[in-house]
Amino acid sequence: MTSDGLKNVVLTESEMSYLDGDTGDLVYRGYDITELAERARFEELFHLFWEGDFPSQEQFDQTCSVLAENRPISDEIKQLAKKLAENQMHPMAALRTLVSALPAFDPDAGSSPLNMEANYRKAERIAAKLITLIAAFDRYRKGHEAVDPDPELSHAGNFLYMLSGEKPSPGAEEIFNSCLVLHADHGFNASTFAARVTASTLSDIHSAITSAIGTLKGLIHGGANSEVMRMLLEIDQQQIDPIDYVKQKLAAGEVIMGFGHAVYNTIDPRSPYLRKMCQKLGEEQGETKWYRYSTKIEDYMEEAKGIRCNVDFYSASVYYLLGISIDLYTTIFAASRVVGWIGHIMEQYAERTLIRPRARYVGPMNLKYCPLSQRQ
Amino acid sequence: MTSDGLKNVVLTESEMSYLDGDTGDLVYRGYDITELAERARFEELFHLFWEGDFPSQEQFDQTCSVLAENRPISDEIKQLAKKLAENQMHPMAALRTLVSALPAFDPDAGSSPLNMEANYRKAERIAAKLITLIAAFDRYRKGHEAVDPDPELSHAGNFLYMLSGEKPSPGAEEIFNSCLVLHADHGFNASTFAARVTASTLSDIHSAITSAIGTLKGLIHGGANSEVMRMLLEIDQQQIDPIDYVKQKLAAGEVIMGFGHAVYNTIDPRSPYLRKMCQKLGEEQGETKWYRYSTKIEDYMEEAKGIRCNVDFYSASVYYLLGISIDLYTTIFAASRVVGWIGHIMEQYAERTLIRPRARYVGPMNLKYCPLSQRQ
Repeated sequence: MTSDGLKNVVLTESEMSYLDGDTGDLVYRGYDITELAERARFEELFHLFWEGDFPSQEQFDQTCSVLAENRPISDEIKQLAKKLAENQMHPMAALRTLVSALPAFDPDAGSSPLNMEANYRKAERIAAKLITLIAAFDRYRKGHEAVDPDPELSHAGNFLYMLSGEKPSPGAEEIFNSCLVLHADHGFNASTFAARVTASTLSDIHSAITSAIGTLKGLIHGGANSEVMRMLLEIDQQQIDPIDYVKQKLAAGEVIMGFGHAVYNTIDPRSPYLRKMCQKLGEEQGETKWYRYSTKIEDYMEEAKGIRCNVDFYSASVYYLLGISIDLYTTIFAASRVVGWIGHIMEQYAERTLIRPRARYVGPMNLKYCPLSQRQ
Repeated sequence: MTSDGLKNVVLTESEMSYLDGDTGDLVYRGYDITELAERARFEELFHLFWEGDFPSQEQFDQTCSVLAENRPISDEIKQLAKKLAENQMHPMAALRTLVSALPAFDPDAGSSPLNMEANYRKAERIAAKLITLIAAFDRYRKGHEAVDPDPELSHAGNFLYMLSGEKPSPGAEEIFNSCLVLHADHGFNASTFAARVTASTLSDIHSAITSAIGTLKGLIHGGANSEVMRMLLEIDQQQIDPIDYVKQKLAAGEVIMGFGHAVYNTIDPRSPYLRKMCQKLGEEQGETKWYRYSTKIEDYMEEAKGIRCNVDFYSASVYYLLGISIDLYTTIFAASRVVGWIGHIMEQYAERTLIRPRARYVGPMNLKYCPLSQRQ
């Protein structure tokens, strides 16, 4: 007699994104993501989600210059990233900690969460710095120095550049840009919902983003794409047929990561584009086995089990082909979704409703306290 | 046509605590808190909330020794606390960051959130260290060195000792113990709910507690008790009659902090005991004005407005009389509530249901993407 995780409870109204689980549509403020994945720059989504529509050229240039200005991180934050890296912290735990630490060095940290102008300035800084934090942490744990952002590069380009220290090819930059576009918002997923719960008490934006990152870290939320790649690597190492591998796992009662979705009963609209990117990148690099394994598994799961793959399935091998460390995949999700999180946090601030459901108490009642010394 | 913040939605069942908003009852696993506030040691609540009932003497001794062993924090965490203190970070933001950083130095950090034994070890460390983190941060920002915990002192006693550097009087320790007992759990309040949302994705316990701290930080959740004290100080500085002060605020459309509650339609069962403690401490210290101001405001609000005070109202002046800095009050709330948060997180792990409500999309549809260069 409980609500099954609020699965069918409509909490509130939102103008951020529309999901249709039956038709497989995902729409950002009126725009179908299939078109956006091919044509939009990730930087355009800031204005789309935060201001309500796509920017003019002038507004777009403004976003790009604000991001360029705010991407660098202070030496103190670098030192913290280095310390966490030296202790082999989980990348998502490190990102959660680093974002939480940012307000110690933010000029607007003392402002009220009701000051919307200050909120947007803080939001811009968080979104800009997120990729720098991730890349610095990854460089440090590999024994390298951090690479400073390049103001001439796009957000997608900067991320790849700060990770590797080399300017990415236009093709890699374009594909990674599409990945960021495809992950930017998705209704009331659990991390977005956590951000809204935190913001609903009129807590600050750093708290809300920290909650979202910690929630996205979960095995059944953002953690899935890393697991998909580990599966593909296992298949490769064992030189086993991917279908046999999947059959064995299913027979053992295990879950195949990257399949099924809480909302979509049909195809996840983000996966066909990622599938195409996986093929394209593989062909460019002469390394098509990940695409081959993946399509075999996808076809089998659909035919034998009737389960379609989700956004995590092909993003795994796309990130792998882009040379990104496997345990960093969930941080990429965060680097994109932060734009959606912030849009939702702003909606929540405007709504001013505390989110607080009830529990039905089913424990004992009317017990009598017995002093410790008299207990058995 | 929305759910009003899930106010009347029953999310799930829980055996942690029972709240009756109409009778004003609060029950921890079957035990009325009125009795517990007077008689229970805070350390007993660990076993009550995590294991289901009060501990035997042996189990209690075990909890005390685990807490004593785990209260100390590493030099690296001290350095981080000092750095955040030097940058004048908000105490709740610092606590959120420090708890988030703990797994970098936790031997169980790499364990799965499904490993319940490791979860309990991590939980014990977090709960033990929370008061040490708060006290160290407070000492550093005041230009002092941190005080190491004393294994001979209780949890309440240690907190007061590490803040001031002096052993507390038995009376102060007892009163502070009661404060910790009274704040330990409260159904699905927003911070507890945030912790459960984070845990519902099978994220780790540090993530869930970090979400809870960030959510508790909100102005309309844990932030209220500091605001109550600022009001009392303003009344004192202006030498104005407390009732006139309240009348002026209400006439200006302002809210009087420490009054009203999302659940209780009658008295908050935690406030009468805190009222008594405020009186007792005031008389002991020969400083009764805070009690006098408070009771005047309480009586007026009840008679004129029909609104009763909540747990935050008298805890404000109790903490003030105990010599605790005003902006530290919400961290005390966290130091107590962490025991409840952890119990709820363990319930959530056992339940294995993703918490994910829906939103009704009310934005535009069927918009056509226009390339940036062609936009007006």
